[in-house]
Amino acid sequence: MNEAISRLLSPRSVAVIGASADPKKTTGRPVAYLQKHGFAGRIMPVNPKVERIGELQCYPDIASLPEVPDVAVVLLGAERAHMAVKELSQRGCAAAIVLASGYTETGEEGARRQQQLVEAAGAMRILGPNTIGLVNLTDNIVLSPSGALEMDEFQAGGIGVVSQSGGILGSLLSRAAARGIGLSKLISTSNEVDLELADFIDHLAEDPATQVIALYVETVRNPARFRAACLKAARMGKPVVAFKIGRSEAGAKAAVSHTGAMAGADSMYDALFRQVGVIRAQSFSDLLDIPAALAAGRKLRGARVAILTSTGGAGTLVSDDLGVAGFDTPAPDADTADALRALQTGSEAVLDRNPIDVTLAGLRPDLLRGAINALLASPSYDALVIIVGSSSLAMPELLAGAIQECLPNSDKPVMAYVSPHAPEVGALLTRRGVPAFTAAESCTAALAGMLRVQRFVAPAQDDSALPLVEAGDLPSGSLDEAQAKQLFSRFGVPCAAERVVASPAKAEAAARELGGRVVLKILSSQITHKSDVGGVAVGLTADTIGERIGRMASEVKSRTGTDVQRFLVQEMVAGGTELILGMHRDALGTAILLGMGGVTAELFKDTTMRLLVQDAQGLKPLSRAEALSMAQDLKTWPLLDGFRGRPKADVEALVDAIVAFSGMAAQLGERLVEAEINPVFVLPQGQGARAADGVVVLA
Amino acid sequence: MNEAISRLLSPRSVAVIGASADPKKTTGRPVAYLQKHGFAGRIMPVNPKVERIGELQCYPDIASLPEVPDVAVVLLGAERAHMAVKELSQRGCAAAIVLASGYTETGEEGARRQQQLVEAAGAMRILGPNTIGLVNLTDNIVLSPSGALEMDEFQAGGIGVVSQSGGILGSLLSRAAARGIGLSKLISTSNEVDLELADFIDHLAEDPATQVIALYVETVRNPARFRAACLKAARMGKPVVAFKIGRSEAGAKAAVSHTGAMAGADSMYDALFRQVGVIRAQSFSDLLDIPAALAAGRKLRGARVAILTSTGGAGTLVSDDLGVAGFDTPAPDADTADALRALQTGSEAVLDRNPIDVTLAGLRPDLLRGAINALLASPSYDALVIIVGSSSLAMPELLAGAIQECLPNSDKPVMAYVSPHAPEVGALLTRRGVPAFTAAESCTAALAGMLRVQRFVAPAQDDSALPLVEAGDLPSGSLDEAQAKQLFSRFGVPCAAERVVASPAKAEAAARELGGRVVLKILSSQITHKSDVGGVAVGLTADTIGERIGRMASEVKSRTGTDVQRFLVQEMVAGGTELILGMHRDALGTAILLGMGGVTAELFKDTTMRLLVQDAQGLKPLSRAEALSMAQDLKTWPLLDGFRGRPKADVEALVDAIVAFSGMAAQLGERLVEAEINPVFVLPQGQGARAADGVVVLA
Repeated sequence: MNEAISRLLSPRSVAVIGASADPKKTTGRPVAYLQKHGFAGRIMPVNPKVERIGELQCYPDIASLPEVPDVAVVLLGAERAHMAVKELSQRGCAAAIVLASGYTETGEEGARRQQQLVEAAGAMRILGPNTIGLVNLTDNIVLSPSGALEMDEFQAGGIGVVSQSGGILGSLLSRAAARGIGLSKLISTSNEVDLELADFIDHLAEDPATQVIALYVETVRNPARFRAACLKAARMGKPVVAFKIGRSEAGAKAAVSHTGAMAGADSMYDALFRQVGVIRAQSFSDLLDIPAALAAGRKLRGARVAILTSTGGAGTLVSDDLGVAGFDTPAPDADTADALRALQTGSEAVLDRNPIDVTLAGLRPDLLRGAINALLASPSYDALVIIVGSSSLAMPELLAGAIQECLPNSDKPVMAYVSPHAPEVGALLTRRGVPAFTAAESCTAALAGMLRVQRFVAPAQDDSALPLVEAGDLPSGSLDEAQAKQLFSRFGVPCAAERVVASPAKAEAAARELGGRVVLKILSSQITHKSDVGGVAVGLTADTIGERIGRMASEVKSRTGTDVQRFLVQEMVAGGTELILGMHRDALGTAILLGMGGVTAELFKDTTMRLLVQDAQGLKPLSRAEALSMAQDLKTWPLLDGFRGRPKADVEALVDAIVAFSGMAAQLGERLVEAEINPVFVLPQGQGARAADGVVVLA
Repeated sequence: MNEAISRLLSPRSVAVIGASADPKKTTGRPVAYLQKHGFAGRIMPVNPKVERIGELQCYPDIASLPEVPDVAVVLLGAERAHMAVKELSQRGCAAAIVLASGYTETGEEGARRQQQLVEAAGAMRILGPNTIGLVNLTDNIVLSPSGALEMDEFQAGGIGVVSQSGGILGSLLSRAAARGIGLSKLISTSNEVDLELADFIDHLAEDPATQVIALYVETVRNPARFRAACLKAARMGKPVVAFKIGRSEAGAKAAVSHTGAMAGADSMYDALFRQVGVIRAQSFSDLLDIPAALAAGRKLRGARVAILTSTGGAGTLVSDDLGVAGFDTPAPDADTADALRALQTGSEAVLDRNPIDVTLAGLRPDLLRGAINALLASPSYDALVIIVGSSSLAMPELLAGAIQECLPNSDKPVMAYVSPHAPEVGALLTRRGVPAFTAAESCTAALAGMLRVQRFVAPAQDDSALPLVEAGDLPSGSLDEAQAKQLFSRFGVPCAAERVVASPAKAEAAARELGGRVVLKILSSQITHKSDVGGVAVGLTADTIGERIGRMASEVKSRTGTDVQRFLVQEMVAGGTELILGMHRDALGTAILLGMGGVTAELFKDTTMRLLVQDAQGLKPLSRAEALSMAQDLKTWPLLDGFRGRPKADVEALVDAIVAFSGMAAQLGERLVEAEINPVFVLPQGQGARAADGVVVLA
């Protein structure tokens, strides 16, 4: 563990720079809250205008502090904060929490101030600026003025939270407390001038009090460090759940202006999260719901869920939503049904269906225990959702106790859906190890999250590098189609056979040589949308191509003013499935994109991406397993997999092409500005794949 | 208004049959709750074993009741309830609420008991059985044993709720109360042996206390009455919002034809709801969120939303989610920005972006009022979402008061997102006319619901019936492809030109006559998947078809054992977009289905449906406007509309074909068992549409 971060999160002494004696003021709160929540260490307020704050002596300046603090909370404005930071650093303080706003998030002048802050900090670590601070719930240490800290008692537990938004920290803290969801640490990193997401993920992965890590993400500033920290957490068996805003353009813009950082494309985050085993929360409430379920420490091994209810409607609600998400809610097997019947739960009880409705009899703790044990023991179920109806509300302790007693008999997940408004019952259950939810969608999200955690396999260390391709002779700028395909070929991507020609006679010869029907295209690095200007003709033969080439030249001339001199004669690839294989690069890194081709798939945006990993040697190509998983990601994967009697496609050849393309992107790195094969035809099994058109821009 | 329903919802006297003196028992609760919530009328418990229940005299039997009750709550079990019902009916009671379960929901014996109950009721109306009763919050009348009624005070308001589940009634009642969402009436209809959804929608449409109607739907038993009631509510300006379970059962009713498989029952509900202006709640929480927003009675005229915040993170959250759903969150126009700046909200305030961040200064009521008024007055915004952060929690009354004071200045929607856990603040705001939500998705759902209400146009009374087609001569059973297309043609659907042939020579002649390239298909009413057995060949000419017909016959023979005698020679339709036009019929009625053709679109289930309206004259065909809206529903509509330089399709011809096809379904009614055109080619503008293949089964 990083020592400075340990001291930041668990300081023995805290200086509060600019502390006010008025606990109602933002500047008065940190000291007040430290005391309220029982900080056991030394609190040293600094304020030249105040002598005491309550019992505490107040110091006129940093120089007068009687000991070097582990942490300083800097409450000064942006115009003065850097001066305090410099002094604190000089005295050897481990870390400063800078709350002031007015840095990069406000523009150029702010960016300058932020740089000044970095320089002032020297070796001292900075949390912030523009942060609301942090809360260590494990040890009751609060270093924050968040109004949410007015609460009297925390719910300490196993979820460590890192948020890039300060306001969100208060929201998560108060929402978790109200629901009985226990947190370990809560850190707001905000502008991340120094300490960032990755630092705290890395730290929490080793924190014994933390079992699950929850992230509120606006931007990942350092993808390589983020990746390493998340993979470390996975190795330590600590799932990471992230909610990231910026799914829409509006949100992305709002986030940029909020933290002053440029974000990558949202789909790049999907790729990043997925590759490092981070579960993406689809809604803000999922960011508590999924960790709450994971923190119970139980294992979901499959998708079959038993629903135990004493009230019909709510059970159906949960069952319906689980069904939409692909979970099974099978009826009890014969043995389980017998075991349930043996409990004699009442004449109206419906025991051979799921939801398993034990009627009001299910409110008797002995029957409830019997039913829960029977369902947890059943080989037909991987998890159990218990519905809490209005009739259960009269006996929350009995209910919670009965469920809790069954937990040790199985390690399958048990969760509760609370149908009426009864927050205290939900909190009680959650505290007793039965995560409780008030939305069917939350149960579903929690179970889906658990399943994804269970199924994530960290990428193996794959050191089988692709052979280096000779590429010292590459030109700069846009390549024409023939040059682009020559480059793809050189890196091992199979391309359609073709000839560059400049006359009707050469075209005829080329067509004859290639055999069968051919495609004729203009060859130009200027004109990218060839078919829009009449520059593509398909299904030609050696007999017809000579005449066609002349017509094409004059049509393109009349539509673009360009005299096309060179043409491409290409074998006509038929009978395959068209895909798009491309590269995308932004702040998050370099990614390979695979998409289904054709306008229909385009309307459905059926694409997937994988980021290339950057290590000390540079970018690494994708593995075959990753390439295959990309194809399987596509919603239209069935088109490649024998859907409706179609021939199975040559997926092996597609995988080879993806790996080869990624090898090109990896080796060329920044030199490759743009690259896309559109389309690549994947032919039936055994017949390979062919790049039929493509674009390359080289730096 | 129906008088019996009025008496049921607002009785002056209530008999409680089988009342217990123990208020803890389910049978003791109705009397206890009537008293607890201050029922002003007469309560007459009936129980031969009890003399008094508290102050109330208890009667030994129904015959002894001193007056005819408006309503009786029947607490007896299923084996005795019908006897009480019979006596009550004979005494002239307006309606009985039968709580017992053990009817159709439990099987055959239960169904028999339910029938017995109907007969016993005679002219008296029945609510239930298997119901949890009803609550009239407008008048503080509770006719229910729901545990949710333990609460001390209701929040009366403008939302009338009808639920087909009893347990859900308690859930909605308690959740609404906790959030300050006011309800007018809450009715659980459950088994609906008599009174059903439509009765109460119809009633609530006229109820002065009800502004919005919310439905929890498991099944619509009577689509025609449901339709009429919903359209009446729309005419009365009362939006209807429905949450329907059973989404994951979609597709369970797999029909023989392709259409049936794609159009599960749940999509029929989508069609029904949409056609009658019912807003479908996508989650259970939406069923309170959307009505809560609508009940504020304000008008959303567009999709531009201002977000006012004093805390960065939560504003971004809301903005992001609105963006995903297609809402705009534009920056303030110059005048509005000036007006905001004039408020001098503080140096860190960000006023030229949206979310509009007024920082902590926004917590001063005068500044808050100024900002709200400026944003509501701005021509750039259609609605305002106010973010409530942790720092606002110290002054909920001030906050709520300031917002409320601005409401009369505009009729644009104003809602709040409460970021920290602060249920009392949310409830306060909601009660003051500012619906408050704790999820960004709820704000979005509420605004999206309001927009849909605003945009719904009730279908005009369209009496322009299609001319009747002579159809007395139709055969029964499966038609072969040629017969199917003859039927389509007869009803005005244009079909590809074709000839039925039985010999190579006739095929050659037909091909010559049709001209160009042709398609050859086997003609058989037995073999439905022709291409799977080698029974389709495309791109043939008069020269090649003779040889091909022989080869096709032997291939089909070898693969199916069938000697095919007849073939179809069809003009080859090219250059169009393939669609599917079909009919689907289930318990909800007869619907027309339009889907994009081809396997890619099929993988994305790109289909839409419209139910045909049944009136006294029978089924009515679709109007041209409805047919056009179907095409525009498709996610792949751009393929018809000139996407990426494609030629615009002949949408007029498609609309004609849909209307003609719907006319066939309407006129033939139950005689048409199955009908599908797959594909229908829609050619470029001015070139029409052509049905190229089809299936028809006639009764």
